[in-house]
Amino acid sequence: MTIVADENIPALEPLFQRFGTLRTCAGRTMGAEDLEDADVLLVRSVTRVDAKLLSDSAVRFVGTATIGMDHIDQAWLRQQGVGFSSAPGCNADSVVEYVLGSLLQLAFEQRFSLYDKVVGIVGVGNVGGRLQQRLQALGIQVLLCDPPRQQAEGGGFVSLDRVLADADIVALHTPLIQDGPWPTYHLLGRHNLNQLKPNAIVLNAGRGPVIDNRALLDIARMRADLTLVLDVWEHEPEVDPQLAARCAIATPHIAGYSLDGKIRGTWMLYCALCDHLGLPVETVLEEVLPPAQVRALEMSDEHDLLTPARLVYDPYRDDRAFRQMLKLPENARRLAFDRLRREYPERREYGTLRVEMAGAAAGTRLRAMGFSMTENEP
Amino acid sequence: MTIVADENIPALEPLFQRFGTLRTCAGRTMGAEDLEDADVLLVRSVTRVDAKLLSDSAVRFVGTATIGMDHIDQAWLRQQGVGFSSAPGCNADSVVEYVLGSLLQLAFEQRFSLYDKVVGIVGVGNVGGRLQQRLQALGIQVLLCDPPRQQAEGGGFVSLDRVLADADIVALHTPLIQDGPWPTYHLLGRHNLNQLKPNAIVLNAGRGPVIDNRALLDIARMRADLTLVLDVWEHEPEVDPQLAARCAIATPHIAGYSLDGKIRGTWMLYCALCDHLGLPVETVLEEVLPPAQVRALEMSDEHDLLTPARLVYDPYRDDRAFRQMLKLPENARRLAFDRLRREYPERREYGTLRVEMAGAAAGTRLRAMGFSMTENEP
Ligand SMILES: NC(=O)c1ccc[n+]([C@@H]2O[C@H](COP(=O)([O-])OP(=O)(O)OC[C@H]3O[C@@H](n4cnc5c(N)ncnc54)[C@H](O)[C@@H]3O)[C@@H](O)[C@H]2O)c1
Ligand SMILES: NC(=O)c1ccc[n+]([C@@H]2O[C@H](COP(=O)([O-])OP(=O)(O)OC[C@H]3O[C@@H](n4cnc5c(N)ncnc54)[C@H](O)[C@@H]3O)[C@@H](O)[C@H]2O)c1
Repeated sequence: MTIVADENIPALEPLFQRFGTLRTCAGRTMGAEDLEDADVLLVRSVTRVDAKLLSDSAVRFVGTATIGMDHIDQAWLRQQGVGFSSAPGCNADSVVEYVLGSLLQLAFEQRFSLYDKVVGIVGVGNVGGRLQQRLQALGIQVLLCDPPRQQAEGGGFVSLDRVLADADIVALHTPLIQDGPWPTYHLLGRHNLNQLKPNAIVLNAGRGPVIDNRALLDIARMRADLTLVLDVWEHEPEVDPQLAARCAIATPHIAGYSLDGKIRGTWMLYCALCDHLGLPVETVLEEVLPPAQVRALEMSDEHDLLTPARLVYDPYRDDRAFRQMLKLPENARRLAFDRLRREYPERREYGTLRVEMAGAAAGTRLRAMGFSMTENEP
Repeated sequence: MTIVADENIPALEPLFQRFGTLRTCAGRTMGAEDLEDADVLLVRSVTRVDAKLLSDSAVRFVGTATIGMDHIDQAWLRQQGVGFSSAPGCNADSVVEYVLGSLLQLAFEQRFSLYDKVVGIVGVGNVGGRLQQRLQALGIQVLLCDPPRQQAEGGGFVSLDRVLADADIVALHTPLIQDGPWPTYHLLGRHNLNQLKPNAIVLNAGRGPVIDNRALLDIARMRADLTLVLDVWEHEPEVDPQLAARCAIATPHIAGYSLDGKIRGTWMLYCALCDHLGLPVETVLEEVLPPAQVRALEMSDEHDLLTPARLVYDPYRDDRAFRQMLKLPENARRLAFDRLRREYPERREYGTLRVEMAGAAAGTRLRAMGFSMTENEP
C-alpha cells in the first residue's frame, strides 16, 4: 500500500510506515501527479482535496490531520466511496490549556480567585466540553450555552443572555456559522456586549468573526473594566493593532498549537485508517509522543496552580512575539501572522508534566488541571 | 538585652529572640522614645539613624538590613563607639538572577545563543563579581570594567571604551558616584552611547543616573537595533513612560528583591551581632529560609536553561505589573512605583530549586546558573 502525506504532518513514520510505502511531499503544491500510485492520502488544511486532485488516482482513504474540513470536498469523496476522516478534537486540550493558563495568569495579576468566578462557556463541543470538565473538576461554577446541544439533549444549558448577565468570565468556543437557526457570526456585538458584567473577562479562542471586533474595541474603550483575551481575529491574518493593544493577552490563532495536539491529529488518522482496513490499533498515542524536556515538578502544595501551568505553557510567550509583530508596517504584518503560526515554537500539554506532592489527598486540583500526579511519601 | 527592630525586617524572631527581648515597631515613625531601653537597633532604609535618634539611648550596636547606608550617620556612631553593620551583597544573587533571567529570555526571543556573546560588566563589586562568576562558569566571555579595582588590583580589567567597542551585552552594576576620580553619574550618555555595538543589549540594575536617560531615549529612537533592560531610572520614582515603552524589560527597582536576599540581610546582621558580642554563629542561613513552594524539577537535559530560570523567577512578571502602572496618570505613578516595591510578591532564588537530571556530567551549566543539582540514575 502506498501512502502519500503532507511532509509537515508530524509522527508519520512511526505510525504509517508499517502499512507499506510512505512518501511525503509539500502540501501546498501537491497535485494529481503526486498521487498516481497512492492508496491513502494524508493532508493538512493547505491541500484542497477534490475531484481535480483525486479522480485519476486509486486513493481509497483520505485523512486530514485537522479539525477543519473546509478544504475537503466531502460530498465527492462520499459519492466515490472513498473513506474519509478528520481529527475532531485533536487539539481541544491545547485550547483548554490556553484558556486555563490565561485565566490563572489574570487571577494572579488582578488578585482574584478563580474559585469565586462563574465561567460561561459558549459552544460546548470538543473544546468547550473539555473546558467544562476541567473547570468543574476544579470546583469552579460553569454556565453552558449551546442551543444546538440544548435542542438535542434538553436540560443543563442556558441562553447567551443569561451567560452575559451572570458569568464573570465568558469563553467563546463556537465554530463560525453564518446562517441556520443559530448563526454565530457576530454572536457578540454592539447589541449585547454592553450586557457584560462589571469586570468581565472575555476570551475568544473559537473563530474571530464570532465577535464583532469593531464593536468590541468601541465598547472596550468605554469600559476600562473589561479584560480581553483574543487568540482569533475577525479579519485574520489582518489584525487591528488597536484592538490587540487593548487585550490583556493577544495571540495569533495558536491556542490549539501544542505538539501533543498535532501528533494526536496524526494518531487519530492512524486509528481511522486501521478501522477502515479492519486492522487492530496497535500503537497508543503515548508511544509516539516525544518525551517532554521537563519531566517532573515537585511541589509542597497545590495552592499555586499558576506555577506548574506556566512551566508547561505561558500564553505570554506567544503574546510577546505577537506584539513584536504588530510593530511591523501593515503589509508585513499579514505575513508575520502566518510566520508566527508556521514557525511555532514547541509547546507541550499539562499531561506531559508529572507533579509530585506529599500527602494522600494531595493533587486533586492538579489532577483536575490535567497534570499527571505522583504521590510522594509525606 | 533588648533589641528594637523595624517590623518589616523578615526572620527576626528565629534569629534575634535568643538574645533577650525583641520588640518591633514601624521603621518610618521610629523615635528616641522607642529606644529608651534598647541595647541593639535593627533598621531598614526608612529610619534615619543619628544623634537625634540615639543620644538618649544605651544602644551599643546598630544594624541595617540593607546594602545602602545613606540613612546612617556612621561618623557619629564611630565617634560614640557604637558597633555597626550593614548587609553588603545580601541581595547580589537576586540581582544576578534578574540579569541572567532577562538575558535568557532575550536570547530565546531574539534567537541568539548567550554562549556566542561577550558580556561587559561595568562595576565588578558584590553584584558584578557574582555575575562574572556565573557567566564564566557557563563558559561565557566577560569583559570587566572597574577602574577603582583596576587601580587597587592591577590586571584583568578593561576601559569603558573597550567595553562599548567589544561587548554585545553591557551590564551596569556601579553605585552612583558624583565626584572623585571615577564618577559614575551619566557614565553612559550622549558622548558614548553611540559607541555601542550593533544589536547591543544594555542592562542597568545599578543606579538610575548612571545612564543619562534622556540621551538613552534619544539614541534608542534612532537605533532600533538596541535592546534595553532597565530596573533603575534616573528620576525614580518618576519614570519616563516613553523610555519604559522603548525597553524590552522594564521594572521598578526590584532586581534585588528576592525573599532569600531579604532574609540573608537579616542573617548577616545576626552574624555581625554575634561577632560584636563575641558569640559563635549558631544558625546557618538555610535554617531560617522558608522552604520553596516548588522544590524540584526533573529535566532530560540542560540545553534549555530558560525553563528552570523562568520557573523560579520570570522578570516579565514584574515588567507587566510595571507597565500597568505606567498607564496611570502621572501623579499616581510615583505612588504606584513605591507600592509595587512595598507589596512585592514573593520571589525565590535559583538555589532553592533542586534540578534532577540523569547522567554523570549532567548539570554543569545548571550548577553554574546557581541551581541545586541532584544526579539521577541514568
Ligand atoms: N484557536 C485555536 O487554535 C482553535 C483550536 C481548535 C478549535 N478552534 C475553533 O474552536 C471552535 C470550537 O471547536 P470544537 O472542536 O469544540 O468544535 P465542535 O464542533 O466540537 O463544538 C462546537 C460547539 O458549538 C456549538 N454551537 C454551534 N452554534 C452555536 C451557537 N450559536 N451558540 C452556542 N454554541 C453553538 C455546537 O453545538 C458545538 O457543540 C471551532 O470554531 C474551531 O475552529 C480554535
Ligand atoms: N536594582 C537593585 O535592586 C539593586 C540591588 C542591589 C544593588 N543595587 C545597586 O547596584 C550597585 C552595585 O551594588 P554592589 O553591591 O555590587 O556594590 P559594590 O560596592 O559591592 O560594587 C560596586 C563596584 O563598582 C565599582 N565602581 C565604582 N566606580 C566605578 C566606575 N566609575 N566604573 C566602574 N566601576 C566602578 C566599585 O569599584 C565596586 O567594585 C549599587 O549602586 C547598588 O545600589 C541595585
